[in-house]
Amino acid sequence: MIRDELLKNIRKVEPYVPGEQPQKKAVKLNTNENPYPPSPEVRKAFDALDTDAFRLYPDPTAGELVKALAGNFHVGEDQIFVGVGSDDVLSLCFLTFFNSDRPILFPDITYSFYKVWADLYRIPYERPKLNDDFRMIKEDYYRENGGIIFPNPNAPTAIYEELDFIEDILSHNRSSIVIVDEAYVDFAGRSALELIDRYDNLIVTQTFSKSRSMAGMRIGYAVSNPGLIRCLNDVKYSFNSYTMSKAALACGAAAVKDREYFEQNIRKIIETREWAAGELRKLGFVMTESRANFLFVRHPKYDAGRLFSELREEKIYVRHWADERIGQYLRITVGTKEEMRILIDFMKRNTAMS
Amino acid sequence: MIRDELLKNIRKVEPYVPGEQPQKKAVKLNTNENPYPPSPEVRKAFDALDTDAFRLYPDPTAGELVKALAGNFHVGEDQIFVGVGSDDVLSLCFLTFFNSDRPILFPDITYSFYKVWADLYRIPYERPKLNDDFRMIKEDYYRENGGIIFPNPNAPTAIYEELDFIEDILSHNRSSIVIVDEAYVDFAGRSALELIDRYDNLIVTQTFSKSRSMAGMRIGYAVSNPGLIRCLNDVKYSFNSYTMSKAALACGAAAVKDREYFEQNIRKIIETREWAAGELRKLGFVMTESRANFLFVRHPKYDAGRLFSELREEKIYVRHWADERIGQYLRITVGTKEEMRILIDFMKRNTAMS
Repeated sequence: MIRDELLKNIRKVEPYVPGEQPQKKAVKLNTNENPYPPSPEVRKAFDALDTDAFRLYPDPTAGELVKALAGNFHVGEDQIFVGVGSDDVLSLCFLTFFNSDRPILFPDITYSFYKVWADLYRIPYERPKLNDDFRMIKEDYYRENGGIIFPNPNAPTAIYEELDFIEDILSHNRSSIVIVDEAYVDFAGRSALELIDRYDNLIVTQTFSKSRSMAGMRIGYAVSNPGLIRCLNDVKYSFNSYTMSKAALACGAAAVKDREYFEQNIRKIIETREWAAGELRKLGFVMTESRANFLFVRHPKYDAGRLFSELREEKIYVRHWADERIGQYLRITVGTKEEMRILIDFMKRNTAMS
Repeated sequence: MIRDELLKNIRKVEPYVPGEQPQKKAVKLNTNENPYPPSPEVRKAFDALDTDAFRLYPDPTAGELVKALAGNFHVGEDQIFVGVGSDDVLSLCFLTFFNSDRPILFPDITYSFYKVWADLYRIPYERPKLNDDFRMIKEDYYRENGGIIFPNPNAPTAIYEELDFIEDILSHNRSSIVIVDEAYVDFAGRSALELIDRYDNLIVTQTFSKSRSMAGMRIGYAVSNPGLIRCLNDVKYSFNSYTMSKAALACGAAAVKDREYFEQNIRKIIETREWAAGELRKLGFVMTESRANFLFVRHPKYDAGRLFSELREEKIYVRHWADERIGQYLRITVGTKEEMRILIDFMKRNTAMS
């Protein structure tokens, strides 16, 4: 127990329980990881690392990784910022760009950490409601604001908005920073990166944790114009010079360079997604049109909370939120076809009984 | 250029230039890295890593590394918190524990990031002056405060205070959190870890970047009582669940377990430090009594700024601050004996001419 006089100056936060780490035999469809390993080039880069050099600090500019990403996206190296997962990048974006008295805007149903970072940094915010089809209403983002952030595709809805939608929000907010969090865009379609030259208020963030099979190495990045990227670097360097380990830099660069493996991997996941979605629909499941590596589904006759628990008993892990608007939905990561078959077989047996 | 209307909400920070990354032939004595590679056990653990499993998120509890550290220090696993270098750990400590309206206290001459984090999180602070011998005056820390932090040994002074000094500060501050930043303690003597059971207001932080030759992997940790460690974890999990990569966890655990290598490595560095200090004294240098892996020296007849530049022309990199109180000092990392000999030979040639 902490004595009261010590306790009074300690930050109060909402308690959090880390995600479940199921045993090996489980079917883990709860954290949107990639079911396939990283590119074989990652192992090669890993083996080639000089561990003796670990005694030295890593390159604070993360040059090797920045260069690989710049080459991949055909932008300047001064247009890339990298961090320890996109959570690190996004958190730093909040700190750097959202310093207004006016509220920042993000959807009511979206990535849960936006609210957390806003609270942490004492940034005011408003959360326009998604409509009944879980879509953003773009006009909600035309009001005065201190910045805008949303994922595309959105999470956990899996819904992707086309670039004209993004562009409408950008053009109505020329005096606000707009961050498009593209954690899942590689499973979706065109990236807002195309708009970066035309909109100097746009920042796009992406991650290695999903489409590049590297959640375990913690790599994320932002792409924007050189001016905004310099602001991110200035803030980062001002309070933490070295964050990316030598191993992360080398493995990350290797992963980016193997484009063919990456594209093949994405194709397989999309194919499995479409197949699994079809099978679940046959069983009566209703769902959004997923453009991510997960499905957002409900069954009209079957309580989601109960289904979640029953799946868990079978060691099939999916995600469920006890929330007013999405409490009847499950979020199911697209795993291998074999994993999805185990899930679907379970659903066949259970929903048939309902 | 960023347009004014965008610029007005962007955080302003003091510009920072990352540390120099000299070429291979240089003698790099500027960032207090360890001149010896990590334990051979680190390479083994590294080679044994399953890179395919990088597709999965790392263990958010960092169990493997926490367990190794707890075993090493004979404390409970619930008494260890790990982070991405001790900068990450310390920054999170500021955020978690320094939430008072009263100022926190740290020395005027000390690790420069304390001031940065206090500014970043809007924590008021006061900086009691070190005395003319660069020692902390413990009575300065007996006044009302919102928390206390100092390194032991202090940086860049290299001065170590014995445990009775630390204990006096702890016992006069039972209602404040006191953080002892022991980045360099392995080169010094007894750690304040001994005091943890007796003082529930004490947090000790250490790092893998110096004595464990792992700056490149970014690992730091805090040790305290279970109550305070839980507060750190609660705050960390509330806004960033996964920070330590799978590679860092495995390599860190391996490094901790090889105690013999670690101790041998420390002994070599201390031996080189004492030898180099003696040689520099023969040349007329004046210095503090170093208990760290660096020397803090000045030459009565030789301007430190000029010496710094001349060394740099010879590709010998040390550290110099253009600061009122320490502007005549250089901070010189203790490298290998060969590296120190190159430095001392240069000093012989140059100070002889003055």
